[in-house]
Amino acid sequence: MAWSGLSVQVGGMSSHPVLLAGTWRPSQSTGSFHAENPATGQPLPGDYPISSWADCDTALTAATAAAALLRAAPPETIARFLTRYAERIEARKTELVEMAHAESGLPKAPRLGDVELPRTTNQLRQAAAAVLEGSWAMPTIDTKLNLRSVLAPIGPVWVFGPNNFPFAFNGIAGGDFVAAIATGNPVIAKSNTSHPGTSRLLAEEAIAAVGEAGLPPATVQLLYRTSHADGERLVADPRTGAIGYTGSRSAGLKLKAAADAAGKPFYAELSSVNPVIILPGALAERGAKLAEEFSASALMASGQFCTSPSLILLVAGDATEQFIATVKTRLEAAPVAPLLSSAVARALAASVQTLQTHGAQVVTGGQLLPAPGCRYANTTLRVTGDGFLAAPEKLQTEAFGNASLLVVVRDIAQIATILGHLEGNLTGALYTDTQGSDDQHYAVLEPLLRSRVGRLLNDKMPTGVAVSPAMNHGGPYPSTSHPGFTAVGIPAALRRFAALQCYDNVRAARLPAGLQDKNPNGKMWRLIDGQWSQGNVGG
Amino acid sequence: MAWSGLSVQVGGMSSHPVLLAGTWRPSQSTGSFHAENPATGQPLPGDYPISSWADCDTALTAATAAAALLRAAPPETIARFLTRYAERIEARKTELVEMAHAESGLPKAPRLGDVELPRTTNQLRQAAAAVLEGSWAMPTIDTKLNLRSVLAPIGPVWVFGPNNFPFAFNGIAGGDFVAAIATGNPVIAKSNTSHPGTSRLLAEEAIAAVGEAGLPPATVQLLYRTSHADGERLVADPRTGAIGYTGSRSAGLKLKAAADAAGKPFYAELSSVNPVIILPGALAERGAKLAEEFSASALMASGQFCTSPSLILLVAGDATEQFIATVKTRLEAAPVAPLLSSAVARALAASVQTLQTHGAQVVTGGQLLPAPGCRYANTTLRVTGDGFLAAPEKLQTEAFGNASLLVVVRDIAQIATILGHLEGNLTGALYTDTQGSDDQHYAVLEPLLRSRVGRLLNDKMPTGVAVSPAMNHGGPYPSTSHPGFTAVGIPAALRRFAALQCYDNVRAARLPAGLQDKNPNGKMWRLIDGQWSQGNVGG
Repeated sequence: MAWSGLSVQVGGMSSHPVLLAGTWRPSQSTGSFHAENPATGQPLPGDYPISSWADCDTALTAATAAAALLRAAPPETIARFLTRYAERIEARKTELVEMAHAESGLPKAPRLGDVELPRTTNQLRQAAAAVLEGSWAMPTIDTKLNLRSVLAPIGPVWVFGPNNFPFAFNGIAGGDFVAAIATGNPVIAKSNTSHPGTSRLLAEEAIAAVGEAGLPPATVQLLYRTSHADGERLVADPRTGAIGYTGSRSAGLKLKAAADAAGKPFYAELSSVNPVIILPGALAERGAKLAEEFSASALMASGQFCTSPSLILLVAGDATEQFIATVKTRLEAAPVAPLLSSAVARALAASVQTLQTHGAQVVTGGQLLPAPGCRYANTTLRVTGDGFLAAPEKLQTEAFGNASLLVVVRDIAQIATILGHLEGNLTGALYTDTQGSDDQHYAVLEPLLRSRVGRLLNDKMPTGVAVSPAMNHGGPYPSTSHPGFTAVGIPAALRRFAALQCYDNVRAARLPAGLQDKNPNGKMWRLIDGQWSQGNVGG
Repeated sequence: MAWSGLSVQVGGMSSHPVLLAGTWRPSQSTGSFHAENPATGQPLPGDYPISSWADCDTALTAATAAAALLRAAPPETIARFLTRYAERIEARKTELVEMAHAESGLPKAPRLGDVELPRTTNQLRQAAAAVLEGSWAMPTIDTKLNLRSVLAPIGPVWVFGPNNFPFAFNGIAGGDFVAAIATGNPVIAKSNTSHPGTSRLLAEEAIAAVGEAGLPPATVQLLYRTSHADGERLVADPRTGAIGYTGSRSAGLKLKAAADAAGKPFYAELSSVNPVIILPGALAERGAKLAEEFSASALMASGQFCTSPSLILLVAGDATEQFIATVKTRLEAAPVAPLLSSAVARALAASVQTLQTHGAQVVTGGQLLPAPGCRYANTTLRVTGDGFLAAPEKLQTEAFGNASLLVVVRDIAQIATILGHLEGNLTGALYTDTQGSDDQHYAVLEPLLRSRVGRLLNDKMPTGVAVSPAMNHGGPYPSTSHPGFTAVGIPAALRRFAALQCYDNVRAARLPAGLQDKNPNGKMWRLIDGQWSQGNVGG
């Protein structure tokens, strides 16, 4: 999930403009770049600017002014923006899907048009509903002491979107964008450099919706790329409120260090190998079905999901060999879809090489495929439990793409040992049989896995990430930067971009609407003297 | 609020033992130190060890094992510990108050015995109630998708307590300790070096209560001091779950940097000057009363509260001169209480010197007082708004203790300008008249102040910090490390020490009690399909 870039042309005079302070204007650029079509390997038309610090500075100043105005914006206005934006995305669906397909190589249908775009507009509409209800802000009232607290906007939010969801996690339309806007913050989006055109089309609709809703023009701004130095500078700028980042661990940790040093909350989703433990009873009971289920999940979007199952633990034996043989057959029979970019293909090749260097053996695949396009053979590797434990850190290298590692362990105890070496992950799955023969192993392994993953699954692959209040798309470091938050799911994802604000003895008329005695809409849940209520203070 | 130490004796053989893995045992120490009586300036009996890394390592290993056991502990057991601990503190009140008085110089009554100790036991009991109810964990259930999430223990928590509340914020008994335990985490407390004896007595009661409740012995552990290098190492250790720190900004930021680099949540309360704006109408209406109110608040505990009002903004004019004259008279008439330690007195003198160097003039006070004891004259300084704006950063130096800075501004517009330079603070107060003449100024200034403080007050000094669900004892950086959290107030303070854990398709019997269909106690608030409920899933 790299946000670093593609090929660069210095001094491109005809670059696309950037969206700053409400208008599309020429970038104060230091160069330009273009996207590529990963299905063909060919460059796509359109030069996009690499912004200098001057663009970042303009964006931050405009966002600061917008933040002050947004604080006074009624919820209806913000909700109207989110709704109109969703409608506009739907109205421009054909063009958006074409562009995202060209830039990402992802199928137009069902993936982009029937799944990801509707998910994106669904997120916008869920957020609009959350803004109107207002419960996300957890208004908390102590009537005896006249103390009242509420979550409030944190300030301008930078959103760095990943390469793997050109709509649903796009910095100008996706989950972090929606969460930051819904909490009343202006967003400065940093497009992923692999899909600048998709980001541009989305931003056109976003700024139009801003105008229709009557929000401050600088509520949404878009840059395409900056230098790494400017990236570290902008996250640490005093005007920055917080940062949402989804992308590679290496780039993310550099930005995080800069943000941390300046005391700026940096919400990052970095990497995850998403361990899946298939216990012996489950394998005996339904091994062929599980091989099919795993193969399908591992190849979804060519394995380019944050939650792709990439580390499978199985106990040595005939059933496991049969499982591996079936997986091999299925991977070899499946078509090889293009990866998101040549950079992703190169990184995948390097990661697989790292796994091999540290003892993993290729079962199938293991090489880049010839042109056209950025493709890597569907790949799985294997290593023994002993082999894994000889280099546990290296063998947890994220091979982002259609590759996975099967760890064939000696026994259940060795799984427990391996879990003790497991890094923080977004997800972890346990498969058990239906007759109870795996239950004692589950009881031993679950606590070890539980503490190292954000979402624990039973008998299910981790690739589906529903937009639900109960979702956790997060996990212990280094899968994310903080284990208490999720990037998906409303209201929890919104609370990342909020500051807690208390009003002590503040006169009634001066309180924000959500903290006044009267419930502003009769639907807002508030914690009044320790009890959740949709009523007014005093009955 | 320094946690750095006092005088040191290397190789003290008769040092007090440390509390590790359930037993009091000799420290693997690199030296020792002793406390001083700040009222006399004399050393107090008792050598306390400076732990080597070996002690830290032992503590971390024991805490890791305890964390796994605590995860399975029923809420009743944790609540029983908290309650028994409160009862034991009350039973040993006389000795605790004597010791804390000797080590801190704070009055035995009302402060230590009648206010702080009851506040401490009240926090323990509030936490016990929160544990039994379970609502703090925000169980969230999506019945359609069978997705269920809950906040769960984050892992072993280090608590670094400050010097200014030997009971209520003590690392082994105070707010952070209570929050970390209530969320199911073991605590390793780092005593403040100014009150090791108080920490020792508290720890004796804590470990006895652990035994009575049947919690794992390593649920509570106590070290007195480490090297700075070991401090940075222990916060970053892989076994560490999170850190609660209250203390000086300089020491805190070093620890924060180490924790950040390792991805460990570091909840720090660092420093705050707590701006108070007294608008002209209020001053005209009740200037003498406000001068009295401010003087009393500024001298409370010799100004050694995190929320002491230390930066007062007033518009130039006769009423302001009268206010200053009254404050001067009151400060000079008030007795001078000892500061918490000679280190605090020295730091205060240095901070006042910094303010003077950058243009502030002493109105009264401004010098250390002669023996006996660590005392500094009740002090206030003044500077013009222009003077403040010439060195806004330096003139926000926290002068921890009985000193404050009055900024006499030209007009309301200059207050607005100054607020633009304001660092993040825990609190900010606005005083206005009752007739509405200040209302237009309030409307201009409130948004500027609001965004820079955690708790906004009207017509009230900030020194009282009630333990209420609606309290925010937190604020924007650098007053704390994250603006979304509070260190005081249940349930919010608990959520700092939790990880979000989602269960996806997990079989019913394997779910934690709070996520099963049946509400475990009929009182737990859960967010079920978007609605808060104390009922069961399905009615």
